[in-house]
Amino acid sequence: MMRRVESRVRVRYSETDQMGIVYYANYFVWMEVGRVDYCTSAGFEYRDMERHDGALLAVTEAKCNYRAPARFHDEIRLLTWVTESRSRTIRFSYEMRRAADDVLLATGETLHTVCDREGKTIRLPEKYRHFFPLTNAG
Amino acid sequence: MMRRVESRVRVRYSETDQMGIVYYANYFVWMEVGRVDYCTSAGFEYRDMERHDGALLAVTEAKCNYRAPARFHDEIRLLTWVTESRSRTIRFSYEMRRAADDVLLATGETLHTVCDREGKTIRLPEKYRHFFPLTNAG
Amino acid sequence: MMRRVESRVRVRYSETDQMGIVYYANYFVWMEVGRVDYCTSAGFEYRDMERHDGALLAVTEAKCNYRAPARFHDEIRLLTWVTESRSRTIRFSYEMRRAADDVLLATGETLHTVCDREGKTIRLPEKYRHFFPLTNAG
Amino acid sequence: MMRRVESRVRVRYSETDQMGIVYYANYFVWMEVGRVDYCTSAGFEYRDMERHDGALLAVTEAKCNYRAPARFHDEIRLLTWVTESRSRTIRFSYEMRRAADDVLLATGETLHTVCDREGKTIRLPEKYRHFFPLTNAG
Repeated sequence: MMRRVESRVRVRYSETDQMGIVYYANYFVWMEVGRVDYCTSAGFEYRDMERHDGALLAVTEAKCNYRAPARFHDEIRLLTWVTESRSRTIRFSYEMRRAADDVLLATGETLHTVCDREGKTIRLPEKYRHFFPLTNAG
Repeated sequence: MMRRVESRVRVRYSETDQMGIVYYANYFVWMEVGRVDYCTSAGFEYRDMERHDGALLAVTEAKCNYRAPARFHDEIRLLTWVTESRSRTIRFSYEMRRAADDVLLATGETLHTVCDREGKTIRLPEKYRHFFPLTNAG
Repeated sequence: MMRRVESRVRVRYSETDQMGIVYYANYFVWMEVGRVDYCTSAGFEYRDMERHDGALLAVTEAKCNYRAPARFHDEIRLLTWVTESRSRTIRFSYEMRRAADDVLLATGETLHTVCDREGKTIRLPEKYRHFFPLTNAG
Repeated sequence: MMRRVESRVRVRYSETDQMGIVYYANYFVWMEVGRVDYCTSAGFEYRDMERHDGALLAVTEAKCNYRAPARFHDEIRLLTWVTESRSRTIRFSYEMRRAADDVLLATGETLHTVCDREGKTIRLPEKYRHFFPLTNAG
C-alpha cells in the first residue's frame, strides 16, 4: 500500500499578499505540486500520462482549511495521499506543515475526473490503476 | 436585505493552463474579486476596512465545485452573497457562470475570520455589521 | 492610424505581495490584458486568431520600468500601442497610470514572434496585417 | 569573488498556459527565487534583511529574453549573479537553462533600489555591502 508522499515547497515572495502571509489560492498550487510528486513517487510521471496516454486529471472539487498562516521563505512539508479511487475519479488529500516546527498550516482535498484531451470523461487507463491505491488515514 | 452582488471577470491568458482551460486555483482569485465588489456594493471599500479600521477578513476555509471549464476570453458572471454572518466570522457563497450562455461553471464558498493586523481574531467592528446581512438562497 | 488603446484594470488582492504593493511580475499580466484589448479595439479577437488561423503571438522579449508602486484596489489606466510591425514580429509598448491621479506607474514593452501551434515562426496571416499599424509616439 | 549562484526550479502545471508552454510572466517569479537563493548562498537570508534591518529590494526595472519555451515538469537550472552594485541599487542577471539538455531558455535582468518599509530609497546597510560583489561574466 502506498504511503503518504512528502514534498517540500519553499514559500516564494510572489505567493505572499499584503497581509504578509501566503495568499489563500496558492495552497491549491502546492497541492498540484504534491499530486505531481505523488505520481513520480508512485512510479510514473503525470506529464507522460497526459502526453502519451491522453489521460488528464481534471479538478472537479477543491477545498482547503487554513489553520495557521504560511509566510515568505517558510519551508512547507506537504503530504499527499489518495482517499478515493474509482474507475473515473480519484480523490487526493493533503496536509501542509511548516517544516521548521511541524505546525499544521492547512489541510486540503481535491477530487479529479479522468478526461481525454477534449475534456470528455474516460476510464483511468488500466496500466495506471495500481498507482492509485487507497491510503489508510493515520 | 442584500441581494447577490454581480461582478464581471474576463478570463486572462495567464489564467489558462496547458489543458486549454482556466487553472483551478484561479477561481479563488475571482471569488476575491467578488468579495471586494460585494463590499463596494454594500456601501464600503474593503481596502478602507483594512486600512482605517485594521479589520482584515482572513480566509479559514475555501472550496470550489467545478461544473464546466472556463476558457480564455470568456466573460464570467460572478455572483457573491453572504450565507453566514457572526461576530467574528463571515461566510460568502459564489456562483460563476459564462456570461454568453449562462452556463454554470462553478460554485464556491469561503469562510473568513475577522482579524487585526497581527492576525489575532477580533470582533467585526460594529459599524460594518449591517453590511453583511444574510441572503436567502434562491 | 490606430490610436493607443486604453484598458482599465482594478488591482486584485492576489496581485499584492508582503511589501504591500503589486508584485512586479503582475505588470506583465496587465500588459497581456492590454494586448488582448488592443486586438478587440483593432477589430478582431486575439482568441480567434489563435483558434481559427493558428497564429499565436509568442513573447520573445519583455521589459518593464517601475516608477511608482500600484496598490490594492487602485484602478490602473493602461495604454497599449504598436511600435514595430514586421512580417513575423510585432512590438507593443505600454504605459500604466493610476487612474485616480494620472500618476505614471510603469512603462513596458513586449516583442512577439508570430508562431503556429507547434511554435514554428510563421508570417502574420495577410488578413491581420492591417490591424497592427505603427502608432506615432505622443 | 562571488560565483554565479545556481537554483533548480521544477515547472508547475499552474505556470503553463494554453500555448502549452510556461506563461512569460512566470520567468520573473523564478528570477525572484534565484535572488533569494543568491542571498542564502552569499551568507544571509533576504527575509532577515527585510525583517530585521528594514531594507527591501524594490524592483525598478525587469526584462527577459525568451529563447526556447519551458514546458510543464521541465527542471530549470537558473543562474543568478550581480552585475551592478551601488550604494542604493543592485542589478542582478539571470540565465535559465533546461537542466536535462542545458538548452538556454531565457536570460534576464532586474534592477533594484534599496528601500525602507515606507518605500523611501535608502543606502544599503553597511553590513550587507560585501554580499553583493560584482561577478565577472564568463
